[in-house]
Amino acid sequence: MTLNAGSSSIKFAVYPVNGDHPIAHGQLEKIGSDDAQLTLHGGNHSETRSEGSLDHTTGLRRILSALDGLTQGAAIAAVGHRIVHGGPDIDAPKILDSALLDKLAEYAPLAPLHQPHNLAAVHAAIAAFPEALQVGCFDTAFHRHHPWVNDTFALPRSYYDQGVRRYGFHGLSYDYIIHRLAQIDSHAAHGKTVVAHLGNGASMCAIRDGRSIGSTMGFSALDGLPMGTRSGQIDPGVLLYLMESHGMDAADLTDLLYKKSGLLGLSGLSNDMRTLETAGTDEAEQAIAYFTFRIRRELGAMAAILGGLDSLVFCGGIGEHSARIRAEVCTGMEWLGIALDAAANEAAADIISNGTTTVRVIPTDEEAIIAKAVRGFLAV
Amino acid sequence: MTLNAGSSSIKFAVYPVNGDHPIAHGQLEKIGSDDAQLTLHGGNHSETRSEGSLDHTTGLRRILSALDGLTQGAAIAAVGHRIVHGGPDIDAPKILDSALLDKLAEYAPLAPLHQPHNLAAVHAAIAAFPEALQVGCFDTAFHRHHPWVNDTFALPRSYYDQGVRRYGFHGLSYDYIIHRLAQIDSHAAHGKTVVAHLGNGASMCAIRDGRSIGSTMGFSALDGLPMGTRSGQIDPGVLLYLMESHGMDAADLTDLLYKKSGLLGLSGLSNDMRTLETAGTDEAEQAIAYFTFRIRRELGAMAAILGGLDSLVFCGGIGEHSARIRAEVCTGMEWLGIALDAAANEAAADIISNGTTTVRVIPTDEEAIIAKAVRGFLAV
Repeated sequence: MTLNAGSSSIKFAVYPVNGDHPIAHGQLEKIGSDDAQLTLHGGNHSETRSEGSLDHTTGLRRILSALDGLTQGAAIAAVGHRIVHGGPDIDAPKILDSALLDKLAEYAPLAPLHQPHNLAAVHAAIAAFPEALQVGCFDTAFHRHHPWVNDTFALPRSYYDQGVRRYGFHGLSYDYIIHRLAQIDSHAAHGKTVVAHLGNGASMCAIRDGRSIGSTMGFSALDGLPMGTRSGQIDPGVLLYLMESHGMDAADLTDLLYKKSGLLGLSGLSNDMRTLETAGTDEAEQAIAYFTFRIRRELGAMAAILGGLDSLVFCGGIGEHSARIRAEVCTGMEWLGIALDAAANEAAADIISNGTTTVRVIPTDEEAIIAKAVRGFLAV
Repeated sequence: MTLNAGSSSIKFAVYPVNGDHPIAHGQLEKIGSDDAQLTLHGGNHSETRSEGSLDHTTGLRRILSALDGLTQGAAIAAVGHRIVHGGPDIDAPKILDSALLDKLAEYAPLAPLHQPHNLAAVHAAIAAFPEALQVGCFDTAFHRHHPWVNDTFALPRSYYDQGVRRYGFHGLSYDYIIHRLAQIDSHAAHGKTVVAHLGNGASMCAIRDGRSIGSTMGFSALDGLPMGTRSGQIDPGVLLYLMESHGMDAADLTDLLYKKSGLLGLSGLSNDMRTLETAGTDEAEQAIAYFTFRIRRELGAMAAILGGLDSLVFCGGIGEHSARIRAEVCTGMEWLGIALDAAANEAAADIISNGTTTVRVIPTDEEAIIAKAVRGFLAV
């Protein structure tokens, strides 16, 4: 079983021990609202039902009971968990024993919106499946071999030693994409690749010869690209100014930068790209323009890290489904060898370009990479 | 007369009303230390003398009295001042009347290390030369026509309206460089140019057809490239973490990010590139590696803003004098058409490349652009 517990959703899937295709999968969305929605797929069965108001713990209980019917009482051998933060050292999936769980709890201040939910899901899964192996798969792990210059900030060195580093996130997605790219085109997977993971959270990763060498996200899930409700890159002087001139404290700034900024802040309307694309207001159009501008800007920066660019891959909810966003990101990027094939882009084809840099759309699958990791432990 | 008052130095020059070459010029350095140094050049005369411990006001008085001998009592018709912050609207030099000075004082929280010194110099000059025209030349003015996407952050829109914008700085230097480039090669000046102003403060500017369309500096003088003692780009999540986990407040963070970070923080040794280049310690080498890495990264980002790159210009103390830094910035940038001519680089020749992108070294001259602006008002 895989569990991917975010701030307002839990994605889940159940796989046979020796098989790539899930027996059942689904997600619980809008946790914390009055109208949480549970979607289930399994066999020939699909349903979406309203679960009213619930929290993560109750939500997980509902998921497990709903799965019971679909999995026909099959025993859960192992649960693989997406965990946002693995700290400075973890570079691979790990068995979640109590010492490691204590360690991971210490990283909660580094990812306050995600880490506590991730760990709550682990404890709930231990309670539900006390015999099962619990495996942690970390969003930071894929980035742990960045060159030092892309791992540090220009602070006094003691801060680096204390863990103030550019961790990078969305590593499960990047890991999946680069494995998938290797299946599709092994030559390309050894080249210079930028993957743009564009969802409600968004980042980009520079991958050379299959390994991450840089990411737009840094220490927290706040840096880099603008996101649904997160600011992305912002001058640290803005925070100092808001503290001194507006009397804001850490809680105020956290609320502002994590929950009220990004697409929502600029549009004044929504954090959802689908809503913005159809809104037609000046503010929504400006929010989209800012989003795509920052992606182009960081694409140049990632190309500089790589020393050029062979492949650009779009993934994530927006990257996979918005032809408009993909087109705007690629506009004016001929200097990087990018030439969009408009028809292929509209069709979300595997390859959507006809320039020297290959632009692809690859649906990401974090559950698949978690399941793969879990199978690795079960085979031992 | 031109006055350029920084946080620990005052540069000055005296020009004839109708002439490009200063009668006298020099600088007072290390203000605030026990050993301020005054350097004077004029006619055949050059001297450097120790002034002991003094503040900006006393320093300016010493400068004026030292100049008296060199200028042989010539009347000062006008004083042109470098002023870091002109706010969101000022896009050209302005006569400094009392209404404008009040307005500029309001911007002090936006540039706390520079603006108060700049304005103190204006008031001292008014006292010393009550009959002279006082002209403000603004580091932000050159950037005031950035496209909106490069002027805003992804915050709720009310913050933009309140002045939380990507102002950009070093505008007098960029303005001078692009004028100088137009004299050297008018075709190049109409192309896609990135200017890297690398001194104790450092930023890069993307210039298309003579106009700034983006800069690595944002709201404050803290963002973008790492500097002598400033962090440059940093994840806003780091500030939140240091507030919550280390109990730091705005004053602590300001001290850390403005005064203890950058090259000084990473090297643990010095904010001075000359010292680092000769130090030979691992930490000094790492500080240099980080500095040049971030410049390459942002060069890619600036190229993305421009849609390609025709010219790269180095200026500022490090940009003009460090062949090593220029070489490291250009390393691995063949993908951008950059091919360094090693011999020309060592000689700091006008053109130091032989690729499709032309790389130049142009000594900047902020005093010259201030004097030019002042002459514009005197001619009216």
